[in-house]
Amino acid sequence: MALLSVLTPVLAAILCLVVGFLFMKSRETSSTSKTKVVASKVESRPWVDQDLQDDTEITAREGEDADWVDSHEEEDLAHVPYSPSRYPEETMLKRAQDFYTLLNQRRSVRFISPEQVPREVIDNVIRTAGTAPSGAHTEPWTFVVVSDPEMKHQIRMIVEEEEEMNYRQRMGDKWVHDLAKLRTNWIKEYLDVAPYLILIFKQTYGILPNSKKKTHYYNEISVSISCGILLAALQNVGLVTVTTTPLNCGPKLRLLLKRPINEKLLMLLPVGYPASDATVPDLKRKHLDDIIVHI
Amino acid sequence: MALLSVLTPVLAAILCLVVGFLFMKSRETSSTSKTKVVASKVESRPWVDQDLQDDTEITAREGEDADWVDSHEEEDLAHVPYSPSRYPEETMLKRAQDFYTLLNQRRSVRFISPEQVPREVIDNVIRTAGTAPSGAHTEPWTFVVVSDPEMKHQIRMIVEEEEEMNYRQRMGDKWVHDLAKLRTNWIKEYLDVAPYLILIFKQTYGILPNSKKKTHYYNEISVSISCGILLAALQNVGLVTVTTTPLNCGPKLRLLLKRPINEKLLMLLPVGYPASDATVPDLKRKHLDDIIVHI
Repeated sequence: MALLSVLTPVLAAILCLVVGFLFMKSRETSSTSKTKVVASKVESRPWVDQDLQDDTEITAREGEDADWVDSHEEEDLAHVPYSPSRYPEETMLKRAQDFYTLLNQRRSVRFISPEQVPREVIDNVIRTAGTAPSGAHTEPWTFVVVSDPEMKHQIRMIVEEEEEMNYRQRMGDKWVHDLAKLRTNWIKEYLDVAPYLILIFKQTYGILPNSKKKTHYYNEISVSISCGILLAALQNVGLVTVTTTPLNCGPKLRLLLKRPINEKLLMLLPVGYPASDATVPDLKRKHLDDIIVHI
Repeated sequence: MALLSVLTPVLAAILCLVVGFLFMKSRETSSTSKTKVVASKVESRPWVDQDLQDDTEITAREGEDADWVDSHEEEDLAHVPYSPSRYPEETMLKRAQDFYTLLNQRRSVRFISPEQVPREVIDNVIRTAGTAPSGAHTEPWTFVVVSDPEMKHQIRMIVEEEEEMNYRQRMGDKWVHDLAKLRTNWIKEYLDVAPYLILIFKQTYGILPNSKKKTHYYNEISVSISCGILLAALQNVGLVTVTTTPLNCGPKLRLLLKRPINEKLLMLLPVGYPASDATVPDLKRKHLDDIIVHI
């Protein structure tokens, strides 16, 4: 009995350690398997992305650069005069109206013609996208242009498999309901048909000569801006695309395309001429008064 | 002694509960005060934003729409033929090259002329930005165009105050070191001088007629794409700007400009003609081969 009275506290101490260990474990998993946690959140509250967006924004602003200065690398970069061409007011107005007319004809098109498109045009379009500003001039983008039929098909297989899973399992009722309305499904024929698939990767960080990581300020916003310029450049040459962000395919596609670990897929754009029988939903855009506020 | 041997396990049990409670507490705080945690993280690991970006991406993809379908509202939207103008190959090439030449002249310019710019030009530029695609065609953007001198000055005061705090306190050594290299400071004269300040808000969610929240899929990416088109439209008319994302000023500026709670400031663009003595850092852009991969 005396022996027992000595042992009990020891056993109790061990029990404490076990309890503590279990809590540690549960904390680890809660952080590592964030994805699942959030996914379930999403099912219960479809607009949770808005809350998360807040976190993102705050953390982004805390950690990143306020001003998209033009250079980051050089210790002391020379400044040179900048005097671009200036147009008379009438010309400005004309150019503004013409550019609006051109871009207002842009639509997301899922029916893409298999006809070949000159590669030089695509190169120029991407060269143009590369003129976008980026946080601290990190230019954190990689444009993977896929024209190889076999590779295009492998991409389609990955995207459709994930999409079907998303449609069937991952998404909450609301999401599925939205889809019903959207009349979309997971068959993406254009991934085989389009002469080019442009996969746009954001470089979430860079690698310095000393092999340390280099911060890529606002890399997602920067690459998205670049995509906007790319869409304008495509419209300017009469090519069409549909802006897609393949759900959960990023890692698989990154491996398939042999992109490094610091690159993450942001968008996938099938590019080509519109099919002769292409159709688009008869949607309207907001009026200027609904998107602009003058003060 | 016998009594003690009975009590010891009880005390041990209580001790276990205390330990457990402490772990619970620490978990709560770690989740609720995410911002602080991250902020300090940032100081120690400047590239932490990259890790966070991952979370963002995953959660976004889990919660949102994969395909940027053209409409979201109508139950059964009619589809109409789409046959935009098509150019011969030589014309495509010419247009692609000309557009690249135009946009390659774009630079972030901090020296903006106070000269007036026709408001109709600005309206057309924003109308053009409004043609951007958006997740489920939510068009989640608001462009606040400020030309009132007093309001511009208030904006400058808010931005400069926050910037100075950021420069002095919030940022880690690395950040400050970067700044030294960047030779920027928190004086933003262009906020007074530029004839227009365009503040671009992302609508993190919408409000349905039944006053429920409406999910705005990929609202930050959508608005960033719209900004890319806006930058192209500005360049097209010979106006300049500098892409800025004011640190931590969002809430104050939102209140100043009387924007609703679902809107968050994404960017602030001072817009005008370049000053006659404007200079820009003599930076180079990556070569095409460094941003494109053909497969």
